[in-house]
Amino acid sequence: MTDKQPRTGPIERQMSRRSMLAGAAASAAVPVAATTVGAPPATAAPGNGRGNPNRGQTRRITMYAEEISGGMIGYGLAPGEATVPGPILEMWEGDTLEIELVNNTDRQLSIHPHGVDYSVDSDGSPLNASFNEPGERRTYVWRTHSPYKAEGGRWMPGSAGYWHYHDHAMGTPHGTEGIRKGLYGALIVRRKGDITPDRQFTVVFNDMTINNRIAPDAPLYKARLGERVEFIAIGHGNTFHTFHMHAHRWVDNRTGMLEGPNDPSPAIDNKDLNPGDSFGFQVIAGEGVGAGAWMYHCHVQFHSDQGMAGIFLVLNEDGSVPDGAQAALDRYRDGG
Amino acid sequence: MTDKQPRTGPIERQMSRRSMLAGAAASAAVPVAATTVGAPPATAAPGNGRGNPNRGQTRRITMYAEEISGGMIGYGLAPGEATVPGPILEMWEGDTLEIELVNNTDRQLSIHPHGVDYSVDSDGSPLNASFNEPGERRTYVWRTHSPYKAEGGRWMPGSAGYWHYHDHAMGTPHGTEGIRKGLYGALIVRRKGDITPDRQFTVVFNDMTINNRIAPDAPLYKARLGERVEFIAIGHGNTFHTFHMHAHRWVDNRTGMLEGPNDPSPAIDNKDLNPGDSFGFQVIAGEGVGAGAWMYHCHVQFHSDQGMAGIFLVLNEDGSVPDGAQAALDRYRDGG
Amino acid sequence: MTDKQPRTGPIERQMSRRSMLAGAAASAAVPVAATTVGAPPATAAPGNGRGNPNRGQTRRITMYAEEISGGMIGYGLAPGEATVPGPILEMWEGDTLEIELVNNTDRQLSIHPHGVDYSVDSDGSPLNASFNEPGERRTYVWRTHSPYKAEGGRWMPGSAGYWHYHDHAMGTPHGTEGIRKGLYGALIVRRKGDITPDRQFTVVFNDMTINNRIAPDAPLYKARLGERVEFIAIGHGNTFHTFHMHAHRWVDNRTGMLEGPNDPSPAIDNKDLNPGDSFGFQVIAGEGVGAGAWMYHCHVQFHSDQGMAGIFLVLNEDGSVPDGAQAALDRYRDGG
Repeated sequence: MTDKQPRTGPIERQMSRRSMLAGAAASAAVPVAATTVGAPPATAAPGNGRGNPNRGQTRRITMYAEEISGGMIGYGLAPGEATVPGPILEMWEGDTLEIELVNNTDRQLSIHPHGVDYSVDSDGSPLNASFNEPGERRTYVWRTHSPYKAEGGRWMPGSAGYWHYHDHAMGTPHGTEGIRKGLYGALIVRRKGDITPDRQFTVVFNDMTINNRIAPDAPLYKARLGERVEFIAIGHGNTFHTFHMHAHRWVDNRTGMLEGPNDPSPAIDNKDLNPGDSFGFQVIAGEGVGAGAWMYHCHVQFHSDQGMAGIFLVLNEDGSVPDGAQAALDRYRDGG
Repeated sequence: MTDKQPRTGPIERQMSRRSMLAGAAASAAVPVAATTVGAPPATAAPGNGRGNPNRGQTRRITMYAEEISGGMIGYGLAPGEATVPGPILEMWEGDTLEIELVNNTDRQLSIHPHGVDYSVDSDGSPLNASFNEPGERRTYVWRTHSPYKAEGGRWMPGSAGYWHYHDHAMGTPHGTEGIRKGLYGALIVRRKGDITPDRQFTVVFNDMTINNRIAPDAPLYKARLGERVEFIAIGHGNTFHTFHMHAHRWVDNRTGMLEGPNDPSPAIDNKDLNPGDSFGFQVIAGEGVGAGAWMYHCHVQFHSDQGMAGIFLVLNEDGSVPDGAQAALDRYRDGG
Repeated sequence: MTDKQPRTGPIERQMSRRSMLAGAAASAAVPVAATTVGAPPATAAPGNGRGNPNRGQTRRITMYAEEISGGMIGYGLAPGEATVPGPILEMWEGDTLEIELVNNTDRQLSIHPHGVDYSVDSDGSPLNASFNEPGERRTYVWRTHSPYKAEGGRWMPGSAGYWHYHDHAMGTPHGTEGIRKGLYGALIVRRKGDITPDRQFTVVFNDMTINNRIAPDAPLYKARLGERVEFIAIGHGNTFHTFHMHAHRWVDNRTGMLEGPNDPSPAIDNKDLNPGDSFGFQVIAGEGVGAGAWMYHCHVQFHSDQGMAGIFLVLNEDGSVPDGAQAALDRYRDGG
């Protein structure tokens, strides 16, 4: 976004085809904040890695870092398409992703991933002279691998996980200014056999904001009753947080689901989400609890009171707004 | 407690028959703070869910929110019986619990659970108009379910876990004032086959307090050598904490015990306990270390120094106070 | 160190034979900070527990607490050898370790372990009158045990884990001053079958420091490409932190490795490291990413910006410094 043309903000750009809901749900007053970029496997977009596992596949994408309204800076998969958070990037263990990053700002910046393999050239840190000068195009290469057997019968970890990427160069050698302004996004590496969701949302607790926004403008996540919804939660900034979701829970392990009936991992609905942390999970929207306006929020009391709270709106199966939900949305907008 | 009659505080009310110890242990100067409500399975009290699994059983209890001395507000299972924390509520996966909450205060309040299933009507949040006006009786319904097989061989989580409940309506839409004043308690959902303890204690790190108290008045937990003791740890408020227990450790998984010799979960004796977090575990009191006065405390140094420290008193098998323990209790009371 | 003779600081003392690297890597300007004390199994030093499992073995060591330059106080295995952190102590499940602690300072202090079994006499707390007066020698006994089968098919935890020890008596009854000044170290208890590393490093986030140092003097950890390197991370003080390592990841379970292909534990490269917390893991240095200067840092942005960042220098297999790494070290030293 170097053209500086007026825009209403990043919100519209964060709607993908998949997050566009049929029916009466889309309210102009309560913007959709889904950051989903992917398309269903059947029509897999080449840019973000959705689709079936392709071990050893190398894909190349171009990402653009650019200014957005309100002093924010985001990553996008096309010029003028930057969002906060950036697009969800997905890989399967074994894949390589080559990212040509175009810096359309007048500031030094980079892209640094968590979880994946990269050489010092792709570290994204000034320490290793791995960043983009203003206007510069630079390629970062991320590789992944499967677990493999080590000594003693144990296995070294593979790359699969709910990771994230972010700037590591703007403002300080740790990218403090870039992160504060929105240069962050989710990175998922899946393992063969992993279940793919119907819908995805990135939730970033960045200092005292959620995706650089606060109530009543915090992200509104929408899904239909029964859809498999994946959340990727990421922490950034200088403050400690805990992520809580009402009426939905997940398993505190790699996938958010039990590997089997003897999986000892606990079920949780509240998890620490501190700077640099990330985790993900899948829920069946409204399962066992019904459609409705369900809160998600930081459980640190004065954080939620100061605006770190949003709504996961579970629509009826036909996409209509369930009874009472509009009243809840209205209360939320009015600060109640 | 609307009668406002003088009382010495919540301490006496937190003693249950099960936490009453025979022998010379009960010192008037060092009050017992156990919040156990349950009875052994053989004489299961209908009110709190202890006993053998009863899948699909629906039980109904009445809880009372009322003022306690010292500006505190608590939940109780009978009028005048409110405590801080509130009673330990227990369910088995498959159970339904209907809670009629009676609001005997002059403030708006609610009860919001973690972990279990509930419709928007039982959310306990002003967002969903789910709260009690002063004097109002209102029923909240909590349901539970077992894990079930999903796609790809994985399993969606059941409800079993060490959860908690708390106000979500007093002072702010997130219940900040209600929580600060003591409207919180432990909720356990067990899975068939889970081991039940001999004794239970709820430990809530609520801002800079333990169960709204600080040293030398922090809770004193007592058990006899060899008893199986369950701790439910809950975080609340605005501050980060870590829970540490001396000379006892547990497994960082659903039950606090290994599922088997190949369970990869780590053993720990110090765990982050931030707002909205909860976990639980069982130890054999004094096992391998002997009877004595064992400290538990927040491991954030200035938190423990400012009073977030208490004693887990492991009595001899006959209920007598072990050598040296009284001296330790005296030092504790004197601030040492 | 009661002789008060001038010294250049703890840095030289933190180099062990094992951490001394051949080749051009050792730069006077970038001191080695490895705190490894152990020797390879073949030449196991009696003092620290490395070597093959010896169930039931009782060993006795003497540790010395003494002042170091810069106002620090450390533990050491010989007079004049105190370091910050103290030596890595290792046990195998079943072992007993008797530590005669010699207090060569003029202050009250103690040694308190996490994870292991000890009676009240070895608690290390003033509460139990378990500490050393100035000049006093006092023995603390730590025992360990294997997991064992409990009711219902579950197993009670063994002692194996990445633990730590620290003062619990200087300044306050919780050892706040002793910890602040450096009285802490790593304690590892291994289980039969555990893999032992080629190299070990202790990383302590103690308030706003790493091992009581900050950039550009934070610890520089060195290993050769392909070596199995064990990190033990410990949190202390009053501040919340998250530990992040570039280009390396581990499994969030007991060993940092998968127990097998069905181990549900997540892979992570960023983990909360709050006061009293500890965890450990092993990585293959530079595996899949190559030699180079890899950052490790607290991911709380202003913590890393203020100096909580250091370098894990992965040398070439022959011990030489890889291309570009010296430039990175120079940038680090210059604050970039």
